[in-house]
Amino acid sequence: MKKIAILMGSDSDFPVVEKALTTLDKFGVPFEVHVYSAHRTPEEARAFAVNARENGFGAIIAAAGKAAHLAGAMAANTTLPVIGIPIKSSTLDGLDALLSTVQMPGGMPVATVAIDGAENAALLAIQILAVTDEKLAEKLSAARAENAKKVLEKDRKLADKYNK
Amino acid sequence: MKKIAILMGSDSDFPVVEKALTTLDKFGVPFEVHVYSAHRTPEEARAFAVNARENGFGAIIAAAGKAAHLAGAMAANTTLPVIGIPIKSSTLDGLDALLSTVQMPGGMPVATVAIDGAENAALLAIQILAVTDEKLAEKLSAARAENAKKVLEKDRKLADKYNK
Amino acid sequence: MKKIAILMGSDSDFPVVEKALTTLDKFGVPFEVHVYSAHRTPEEARAFAVNARENGFGAIIAAAGKAAHLAGAMAANTTLPVIGIPIKSSTLDGLDALLSTVQMPGGMPVATVAIDGAENAALLAIQILAVTDEKLAEKLSAARAENAKKVLEKDRKLADKYNK
Amino acid sequence: MKKIAILMGSDSDFPVVEKALTTLDKFGVPFEVHVYSAHRTPEEARAFAVNARENGFGAIIAAAGKAAHLAGAMAANTTLPVIGIPIKSSTLDGLDALLSTVQMPGGMPVATVAIDGAENAALLAIQILAVTDEKLAEKLSAARAENAKKVLEKDRKLADKYNK
Amino acid sequence: MKKIAILMGSDSDFPVVEKALTTLDKFGVPFEVHVYSAHRTPEEARAFAVNARENGFGAIIAAAGKAAHLAGAMAANTTLPVIGIPIKSSTLDGLDALLSTVQMPGGMPVATVAIDGAENAALLAIQILAVTDEKLAEKLSAARAENAKKVLEKDRKLADKYNK
Amino acid sequence: MKKIAILMGSDSDFPVVEKALTTLDKFGVPFEVHVYSAHRTPEEARAFAVNARENGFGAIIAAAGKAAHLAGAMAANTTLPVIGIPIKSSTLDGLDALLSTVQMPGGMPVATVAIDGAENAALLAIQILAVTDEKLAEKLSAARAENAKKVLEKDRKLADKYNK
Amino acid sequence: MKKIAILMGSDSDFPVVEKALTTLDKFGVPFEVHVYSAHRTPEEARAFAVNARENGFGAIIAAAGKAAHLAGAMAANTTLPVIGIPIKSSTLDGLDALLSTVQMPGGMPVATVAIDGAENAALLAIQILAVTDEKLAEKLSAARAENAKKVLEKDRKLADKYNK
Amino acid sequence: MKKIAILMGSDSDFPVVEKALTTLDKFGVPFEVHVYSAHRTPEEARAFAVNARENGFGAIIAAAGKAAHLAGAMAANTTLPVIGIPIKSSTLDGLDALLSTVQMPGGMPVATVAIDGAENAALLAIQILAVTDEKLAEKLSAARAENAKKVLEKDRKLADKYNK
Repeated sequence: MKKIAILMGSDSDFPVVEKALTTLDKFGVPFEVHVYSAHRTPEEARAFAVNARENGFGAIIAAAGKAAHLAGAMAANTTLPVIGIPIKSSTLDGLDALLSTVQMPGGMPVATVAIDGAENAALLAIQILAVTDEKLAEKLSAARAENAKKVLEKDRKLADKYNK
Repeated sequence: MKKIAILMGSDSDFPVVEKALTTLDKFGVPFEVHVYSAHRTPEEARAFAVNARENGFGAIIAAAGKAAHLAGAMAANTTLPVIGIPIKSSTLDGLDALLSTVQMPGGMPVATVAIDGAENAALLAIQILAVTDEKLAEKLSAARAENAKKVLEKDRKLADKYNK
Repeated sequence: MKKIAILMGSDSDFPVVEKALTTLDKFGVPFEVHVYSAHRTPEEARAFAVNARENGFGAIIAAAGKAAHLAGAMAANTTLPVIGIPIKSSTLDGLDALLSTVQMPGGMPVATVAIDGAENAALLAIQILAVTDEKLAEKLSAARAENAKKVLEKDRKLADKYNK
Repeated sequence: MKKIAILMGSDSDFPVVEKALTTLDKFGVPFEVHVYSAHRTPEEARAFAVNARENGFGAIIAAAGKAAHLAGAMAANTTLPVIGIPIKSSTLDGLDALLSTVQMPGGMPVATVAIDGAENAALLAIQILAVTDEKLAEKLSAARAENAKKVLEKDRKLADKYNK
Repeated sequence: MKKIAILMGSDSDFPVVEKALTTLDKFGVPFEVHVYSAHRTPEEARAFAVNARENGFGAIIAAAGKAAHLAGAMAANTTLPVIGIPIKSSTLDGLDALLSTVQMPGGMPVATVAIDGAENAALLAIQILAVTDEKLAEKLSAARAENAKKVLEKDRKLADKYNK
Repeated sequence: MKKIAILMGSDSDFPVVEKALTTLDKFGVPFEVHVYSAHRTPEEARAFAVNARENGFGAIIAAAGKAAHLAGAMAANTTLPVIGIPIKSSTLDGLDALLSTVQMPGGMPVATVAIDGAENAALLAIQILAVTDEKLAEKLSAARAENAKKVLEKDRKLADKYNK
Repeated sequence: MKKIAILMGSDSDFPVVEKALTTLDKFGVPFEVHVYSAHRTPEEARAFAVNARENGFGAIIAAAGKAAHLAGAMAANTTLPVIGIPIKSSTLDGLDALLSTVQMPGGMPVATVAIDGAENAALLAIQILAVTDEKLAEKLSAARAENAKKVLEKDRKLADKYNK
Repeated sequence: MKKIAILMGSDSDFPVVEKALTTLDKFGVPFEVHVYSAHRTPEEARAFAVNARENGFGAIIAAAGKAAHLAGAMAANTTLPVIGIPIKSSTLDGLDALLSTVQMPGGMPVATVAIDGAENAALLAIQILAVTDEKLAEKLSAARAENAKKVLEKDRKLADKYNK
C-alpha cells in the first residue's frame, strides 16, 4: 500500500495535525510525518515533493498557518494529490491560511479541507487510496456506519430525555 | 480507466464548469456530466452518489454556488473522493460557496479548490487517478513542463522588451 | 396543536439549542428533539423531513455549524417552514454557518435567525403557529409586554442611580 | 385566506422585490405592497405593523438595504412572522443588510432569507400559510415537482450532449 | 448647558457604556442615561427621541449590539445629532453592530464611533456642545494637552530604559 | 452662522463629495471646500485644522479612501467635530476606508457616516449647527416632512398599481 | 547603482505591474523584469532569488494574485528586501492575495504594499536604495514637493470654483 | 551603521513590539525606541519623521492598532523606508490596523508586515541596511541557516518518534 506523507510548517502545528496520524493509524494506512517549512527549509520541502512519488507515497498532506504556502510548494513539485490543511495560527481565525491554501492558480490544485481539519485530511487521503483498494473502501464504509450509529444513539438518548 | 463525474447544481454554472470537461478531455480521461441539485433533485443526487463507485467512477466533481451543499451531499453518500468547486453566483463574490463547501464537519471531507476553479478540479481528479496510473502521471508531468515552457517564453518576451 | 421539530447536527450543539426547548415549553408548544446529521445520517434526516407534515409537525428548527447543511437538507424534503440556526462551532465565529444556512438558492427558503439564536428560532416557530391560533398570539403579546416591563424596570434602576 | 404584506424601504428596491409579487400571484396568495421606510416614515411603518394582524395579514415580508432596519422595526410591533430580505444596495455586496437583518436580539426574530432573495421570501410566506392550508401545501409540492422536472430535463440535455 | 442623552439597548451594555458617563462627568457636562430598546420598548425609545430637543438635550448617544437599530431609531425621530456606539455583543466581533449603525440610508445620519468606543462618543458629544461654548472648547484643549503630556512621559520612560 | 469645511484627500473623490456641497447649499449653510491630503500635503492639512475654529468653522467634513487618514489627521489638530466620509476607491469596496476612519483610538473621535455617504455627512454637520440654531432645526424638520411625503407618494403609486 | 528586480507570477499581471517600471524609469533606477511563477516555474524563481544579491540587485518586487506565493518564495531564498504586490485577480477583490503576501511567518518578512500598489512598490524600492544614496533621496524629496504642488493646484482650482 | 527607529502609538503596544528590539539587538543593529501617537502627539511624531534621516536613521518601524495612522504619518514626512506593524488591539482581530496600514495611497508606501509581526519588521529593517552592508547580510544568512537547522532537528525528533 502506498504511504501518506503528513507535513507541517512548524512543530507548533502538531497538536492539530496529530488527528491525521491517529486517523491513518486507525485505518492501517502507513504514513510518514515531517516538519518542513516552505520558507525556512525550502530545499528540503522541495526535495521531499520531487521524490515523493518514487518514494512510495500516494498523497501528501500539508498543514500550515498564516500565509500558508507549504501545500502550494508541494503541489508545485509533484503531480501527486496534495491535501492542504489551513491552520489557525494568527489573529485572523485561520482565514488567511484558508485563502492562501485554497485559492491556488490554474494548473496547481490543492485539495483543501476545513480550517484545522486534520481528521478530514486523513480521510481524504484514505479515500484517494481507496479508489483502487476495495478493502480500504469497505473500511471507510464500515467507519461511516459506525459513526451513523453513534449519532443515532445520541439521538435516542436525547429524544428519550426530552420527547414525551 | 475509471470515469470522473462532473455534477453542477444548476445549468447556469456550466460556463464556469466547462473548463473541467475540456481539461479531462485533453488528458483522455472519461467523464460523465450531470445537472443535479442537492435541493431541487435530492433523490437523484443521492442516488448518483450511492451508486457512483459501482458505476465505475473514481472521483466526483461537484460545483455549486451560494449555500453550496452539492459537494457535501455527494460526500455524505459515497466514500469516493469528492472535489468541490465553489461557484461565484451570488453578490458575495463566492465567499458563501467557498465556506459552504470547505468547512465540512469531521468525517466528511470535500476536497475544495479555488472559487470557480474548474480546471484545477479536473486536474485534481486526474492526479487522483494517476496515483496508480503511471501513464497518466507522465501526462501530468508533460503538461506541467509544457506550462513552464510557456511561462518562460512569456518571460523571455517581456525581458527582451524591457530589460536593457 | 401542531408540534415543532428541533433538530441539531451534533449533540455538541445542545447547550446552545436548549434555549429553543425551554422557550417552546414556556409557551406550552409541543416539540420533538432529534440529533440528525445531514452528512452522517442523511437517510434519517431525509426521512424525518419527508414525513414531518403528516407526523403532525408545523415547523422544523434545524441547528448546525460550519458548512451547515442540515436546514437546507430539511428544506429540500418538506414544504413545511424550516428555521435555520447557524451555530458557532468553528474558528470562523459562525460566519461559515450563517452563510451556509441563509444563502439558499431560489425555490428552497430557510428562515434563518441570528448565529446561536435558539430562543428566536423557537419564537419564530411559535409565531408561525400563532398565525391561526389566537390564544398563542395573545401569549406572545403578553410575553412581549412582560419583556418591555423588565427593560423599563432596568431603565428606572439605572436612571435612578445616575440621573440627578 | 390571509394576506401577505410586502414592504420595501425604498421604491428603488422594487426591481428585486418584484419577484415576491409574481411568486405570490402564481400561488394565488393575496398580498399588499407598500413603500415604508423605518427611518423616513417611522410612524406609517409602525402603524402598519401594529394593525397587520387584525387587517388580515398572515406574514410580513420586509426588504431593505444598507443598515436594514425595516424588518426589525416590523418585528418590534407585531407578533406575526416577519420575513426579512437583505437588499444589496451599498458598496458592501449586501453584507451590511444581511447582518442588520439576521442578527436580531433575543425576543425579536426576523426570518431572514438570502441577499436579494425575494422569491424565497414569498415561498416562505406561502409555506407559513400552508401549515394549516392543505391545498396550498399541495400547490407547493406540485411546484417543486415541476422544478425538479426542469432540472432533470436540463440534465438530460447536457448529458446527451457531452456524455458518450 | 444642554444635556447629553446616553441610551443603551440593554443594561448588559452598561460596563462598556459607563466610560461615556465618566467622561461627560469629567467635563462637567450634564447627562441622562436610559435603557431603551428599539425592539422591546419601541414606544418609549421613540417618545424619548421625539421630545429630546424640547427636553433640553443637545445630542443623543445610542449604544447597541448585533443588528444595532437603536441609534437609527433615534435618528428617525429627532433632528438632534445622534452618536452611535456599536457594541460587541455577538460572536461577530462587533462587525454586525458597526455595519448596522454606520451604513444608514440617505437623509438619516448616525455619527458612528469605533466598536465599544464609549469614551469617544462622549467626547464627540462634548465637541458638538463646544462648537458654541468656548469654555468647553478650552477644557477639550486642556484635556488633549494633558493626554499628550502623558504620552510623552511614557515616551521618556521607555526611551530612558532602552535607548543608550 | 459658522461655516462647514469640506475636505477631500484627492480631487478624484469630488463626484462623491459633491452631494455634501449641494446639501449644504440647499439649507443655506456656508461652506468652504478644499483638496488636502493627509500624506501628500500634511502641512496644509494640519494648518487648516489648527486654525479652523478661529476661522469661523463649526465642523469639518473629511472624505478619503483606502487607508483613509484625513479625518483622523483633522481630529488630531482641532477640537471641532470632525465628520469622516469613507470613500470607496480601492478594490475592497470601501471597507478599508471605513475601518481606517471609524476605528479611531480613545481621545480622538471621528463621526463616521456610511461609505460614500456625502449627503449624510452634510446633514450631520447641519444637525450640529442646529443644536443652537432653531431656524436651522426647523428647516431640517421641514426637509424630513418633505422626504416622508415623497416616500408616501411612492407608496401610493405602487399600492395603486399592485394592490387590488 | 544596484538594480531592482520586478517579478510577476503571470504576464496577465503586467498591466498593473507596469506602473512599477515607469516609476523606476522616472527615477533613473535600473531594473530587470521577469515572469516567474512560484508554482509553474519554481526552479527558475528560486534560482533568481538565490543569485539576486550577487547579480547586483538591491531589492526584489514580486507581484502575484490569488494564493500569492511568489513574494514569499523569493523571501525564502534571499536576504534581500522583498516587496510584495498583492494583485486583484480572483473574485475576492485581492483580499486573498493580500493575506497570502502579508501574513508571512516569523523569520521571513515580505514588505507588502496595497493591493495593485505597483507605484508604491517601486517607490519603496527606491527608498531602500536611497538610504545610502543621497542623490536618490533628493530626487524622492523633489518628486514629493512636485506632488504636493499638484494637490494644492487642484485645491486652488476647486476652491476658486466653489468657495465664495 | 545607521540606526533603526522603533515607534509605537501607545505603550500598551510594547509587549508585542518588544520582539523588534530583541531582534535588532541580536544582530547588533543600533536602534531608538519611542512612544509617539499620530493623533495625541502629532507634532512630536511629525518632527521625528522630518529629522530622522539627518539624525542617522536608516528606516522607521511604526506599530499601531485600530485606525493605525502612525506608519502613514511617518511616511508622509520622510523619504526613509517606513515599516508598518499592524497591532491587534481592537475587537476586529487586527484587520482594521492591517488595512489602515497597508492600503496607502499612491506616492506614500508603507512596507507592511503581518499583524503583530514585530520580529519580521526588525528583520526587514536589517535587510534594508544589509543591502549595502555585507557583514550584516552574512549575519542574516547565518541566522537563517541556524533557523533551518532548528526546523530540521524538530523534523528529526518528530520523524524518529512517529515514522517506523
